[in-house]
Order: sequence, then structure tokens, then C-alpha cells
Amino acid sequence: MPRYRLILAYDGTKFHGFQSQPQLRTVQGTIEQALVKMTKGRSVTVFGAGRTDAGVHAQGQVVHFNFPGNIPPRNMMLALNSLMPLDVVIKDCTIVPETFHAQFSTVGKRYGYRVSRTRFTDPFKRFYTGHYPYQLDLDRIRAALPDVVGTHDFTSFAASGGVIKNKVRTIYTATMTDRPEEDELYFEFIGNGFLYNMVRILVGVLLEIGNDRRPVAEFPRLYAAKDRQEARITAPASGLYLQEVYYTDAALQAAVTARQHTTAKD
Amino acid sequence: MPRYRLILAYDGTKFHGFQSQPQLRTVQGTIEQALVKMTKGRSVTVFGAGRTDAGVHAQGQVVHFNFPGNIPPRNMMLALNSLMPLDVVIKDCTIVPETFHAQFSTVGKRYGYRVSRTRFTDPFKRFYTGHYPYQLDLDRIRAALPDVVGTHDFTSFAASGGVIKNKVRTIYTATMTDRPEEDELYFEFIGNGFLYNMVRILVGVLLEIGNDRRPVAEFPRLYAAKDRQEARITAPASGLYLQEVYYTDAALQAAVTARQHTTAKD
Repeated sequence: MPRYRLILAYDGTKFHGFQSQPQLRTVQGTIEQALVKMTKGRSVTVFGAGRTDAGVHAQGQVVHFNFPGNIPPRNMMLALNSLMPLDVVIKDCTIVPETFHAQFSTVGKRYGYRVSRTRFTDPFKRFYTGHYPYQLDLDRIRAALPDVVGTHDFTSFAASGGVIKNKVRTIYTATMTDRPEEDELYFEFIGNGFLYNMVRILVGVLLEIGNDRRPVAEFPRLYAAKDRQEARITAPASGLYLQEVYYTDAALQAAVTARQHTTAKD
Repeated sequence: MPRYRLILAYDGTKFHGFQSQPQLRTVQGTIEQALVKMTKGRSVTVFGAGRTDAGVHAQGQVVHFNFPGNIPPRNMMLALNSLMPLDVVIKDCTIVPETFHAQFSTVGKRYGYRVSRTRFTDPFKRFYTGHYPYQLDLDRIRAALPDVVGTHDFTSFAASGGVIKNKVRTIYTATMTDRPEEDELYFEFIGNGFLYNMVRILVGVLLEIGNDRRPVAEFPRLYAAKDRQEARITAPASGLYLQEVYYTDAALQAAVTARQHTTAKD
């Protein structure tokens, strides 16, 4: 059976996350239901690169599945898009070798986080950004961001209760873009892997640094503390976007280099 | 009793339009319910500048009401915002003379219409744009837009069944902005008044002109026809925004002049 890889975007607002759950609307379940229609009843299991939570969005989620039938990728994409609800779109479809695995073949991921700074919640952004209406010294955040980059034990930045023991991850780029016309900040992180809720906790701490509730040099202390209670705040799911998943070192390196140039320009 | 004027923005997706309807969630009803809480039970009637339909958005809807009590406008705005759901925000509050009426004092309005041009519906835009994935010759649309400007009988562009007899309106500016980075077109119209569904029908006809389904010189024919059946297509509510309401000739003229400069620059 050929193995297909999809790149998809979805608005996470009305999904109970990516991963299939009985009786609940999920992204994985939505794709699997469409595939069952195409196979006339044979079930197909979909594997995703990362399990986004309820309310978390994706511009570049990647999934793979084996399909009992040989459909050209272009036709597979058209057929699936015709079966997708309006909050999911398949952006790319290719046939990949059997050795490809959406989750285990990854070498890195890029996550984005949008923060709206309007005084009151902007009605058009409530599902698509976090919201931080308080005073921020952006230079304090800029000074702290380099501490996020590197190989660290992110125990303080992982939601407790996970089964993953090794909490050491490497972050290649951590950037913040000020978007004053939209009254927004945009955070972006590229890393070799991310723990559960890690980006949302990182953003929460960065905002508290900007608001002078934490020292600029907070990250080294939190890495040493290895205590989730220390980081406290988790920024809401609505601002988080899985932007891109990397499967080759070349693709990862190109993305990292592009962001380093951006940072240097700022 | 002092009369208050509010400027508000709302995401129309989850409202059954602006105007109060029994048992249905509407913008007018939402504000009136908040005011009842503030008066501890005395009902207050809210008057809006224009009745937006279900799914239509506003960045600058205007309402007025008389309030039994003398609350400084700043406090009125804070109190109301604390009672608003997340899809409505009050952006401005002032006390106005008793002669001011949100609907009858208007001298003009500005409506915007966003059209997404992506091949498949963009999951993040389905509630916030119309969608036209077909071929468009933008120069044909640009050539037709000046025919929209001026004083015309818009009978062909009004949803039938309305009670308004006089269908002559004056359009001061009709512009289209290409936003290739977002794969969108943005239409904008300033006029002294708009008939029911008029902007959505205008946009539908303009897109058909761009797609070569109608001649560029279609508007003069439609004005003469005075027949709603001729215009056919109504663009969906999701792309429509009530952007601004004008109450003085000076404010209206400033907005018109600003758009004429934009057009001239293009």
C-alpha cells in the first residue's frame, strides 16, 4: 500500500484537539472519516507530527497514512479536500517511502504564537490570538529571548503528568516580532522538539518578563529549578500555531538561517 | 435622561444579525440586556445606525440610547465592556444631544467587503471573507468601478421585499484594493445610504465582471433594468463589514477625499 503524506492547515477553534477521541470532533478523526468514505469502509489510521490541543491552530501540520489503493497524490488531495469541513484544508499531498513517519521522522518543528495587545479583547481575534493588555517593555523580552535558545532541561516548562522522561530539548531560534499596526506581538520558536504546553508556558514567562513581574535573567533560574510550579502561567491555546514540521536537516537549517537573518536585521 | 452614543465592533458570526429578535442572540439584544443590568431592571431601547444581517461584521457600528442616570461616558464604556461577550467591544462612548439619532442623523456610511481568492476555503477566513477561487481580470473590475460612483437607481441591487420605495442612492467612492500577500481583494464603498444587501450584490456583479461573465459596461444596463433578477449573485454575509458611519458632512468629505487619493495613487 502506498504511504501518503499530507500538509494541512486547520482552525483549531472547533476541534477537541488533533488526536482522535471517541464521540469528539478531532482533526485526526475528521481525516480518518474522510478516508473511510474513500475506501468504502476500510479503516485507515492517520499519524500526525504533533498532537495539537483543543483550540490550537495549524498552518503546517503533517500526517501520513497507508492507503489501500493507488490514487495519484493530486487526486487524493482533491478528493480529501472535497470531503473536508471548512475548518480544515489539505495544502499538499505526496507519496512517501514506507520509512517515512510523520511523528518519528521529524528533525524539528516551528511554532508561532500571536499575542493581541488591545485593551479590550478584539472580537475578531478572540479565537486566533492570546491577549495581553498590560504594559510591556519589549526590550526586556528581547534581552531574555537569547536565553531560550540552546539545549536546556525544560522540566519547568512542561505541563506535568506527561509520560516523557527526558525533558531536554534544543531550541534553535526564539524570536519576537512587533506588529504595531495590528497591535500584536508574534513569537516564534524553532526546536528539535517541544514538550506538552512548552510554547505556551515560554510565552507566558516572556510576557511576565516584559511586564516586569520577573527578572530578565529568569530563564537560567527556571532551567535549574526543574519545577513546573515556578513558571506558573500558560498562555491560552488560541494564540498557538503549529507552523511547519521539518524532516530533513537541510530544511530545518534553511528555516533557522532565515530567522537568524531576521533577528540580526531587527 | 442623557443620551449616549457608542461606536462598537463585533464579529457577526454568532449573532442573528443586529436587530433584536425574540429568543435569538442579536447585537442589539446583547447591549440592551447589559443596560438592563446597569439600570437594575429598567429597560433601555438601543437604536442602531444600520441593521447588519446574520454573519455580517462591524468595525464601526454606531448606536444611541437614553439612560436613566448620569454616568460619565468613560465609566459607561468600562461598565458595558465588562458586560459584553467576547465578540462585541465598545470602542467609544460619548454623550450626545437629544437631537442625535444613530439612524436618522447619518449622512453616510462606509462598507468594506473582503474576498478570499485561495483555491480552497482558507480555514481561518471562512467566517471573515467571501470566497472567489475563480479567474479574475482585475483590470476589468477597475474599469467597471467608476460606474458604481454617482447617483443611481439601485433597484436591481436591492433584495426584494423591502419596504423602502425610493431606491435612489449616491455612492461617493467605490474602490478595490488587491492584497496579494493575503490572497485577498478588498472592496470599499462610501455612500449616503445602502439598500438591503446592496453591497453584497454590487460585489457579486463586480466579481462576475472580473470573471468575464458580464461585460465591463454592465452597470448602466442594470441601473436601467431596475430588476433584482438581473444581478443574480449576492456575495456571502461573512465578507461584509460596516466600517464607519458618518454624521457630519465634514467627516464624510474627509473619508471620501482620503479614498479618492488612494484611488489616484493606484
